[in-house]
Amino acid sequence: MKKGMIKVSVLYPNNEGNRFDMDYYCSKHVELVTRLLGDALKGATIESGLAGGASTSPAPFVAMANMYFDTVESFQQSFGPNTDEIMGDLPNFTDITPTIQISEVMI
Amino acid sequence: MKKGMIKVSVLYPNNEGNRFDMDYYCSKHVELVTRLLGDALKGATIESGLAGGASTSPAPFVAMANMYFDTVESFQQSFGPNTDEIMGDLPNFTDITPTIQISEVMI
Repeated sequence: MKKGMIKVSVLYPNNEGNRFDMDYYCSKHVELVTRLLGDALKGATIESGLAGGASTSPAPFVAMANMYFDTVESFQQSFGPNTDEIMGDLPNFTDITPTIQISEVMI
Repeated sequence: MKKGMIKVSVLYPNNEGNRFDMDYYCSKHVELVTRLLGDALKGATIESGLAGGASTSPAPFVAMANMYFDTVESFQQSFGPNTDEIMGDLPNFTDITPTIQISEVMI
């Protein structure tokens, strides 16, 4: 993705005892979000946490998702009206409250 | 980047009063890391934090960097011997201790 684009990161903290269904997340949740956001979504990635900085330490996040948009406005206009439907799908795969970050792509 | 690759994320928590020199980070630090990791580094991105989930809330992270490797071993073999030199450059642009995550690319 190129400089100046907007990246929205959804980070799921890796707390002991929480549940996270990676299969559901990578198939049904991705399908839902992709369909609802439509053309505003310029790309997306999902990662599964393996470890922390030392390979023996636990991953700070069980999963990380990143969505790319051309502008903050196109994120807000596409996500805003669909927030309830997207957030309403969370209990289907996790009981974690994600950390959300809006960033500008520098490199 | 494709499924199965390793993504190493370096997240700088956005704490009040901390300093972070984005210009130095995106030029000199990137140059240093790129040179030291060589061919093992398959790609890298840097983002600058704008906001949290609500556009009026502060970004959880002031900066996020992501580096891609083919395997955990190629990350460890390229980063390991250069850890001191890379970490030794941090005081030149920040006083934040970053959160590090090793992930597997799913999508």
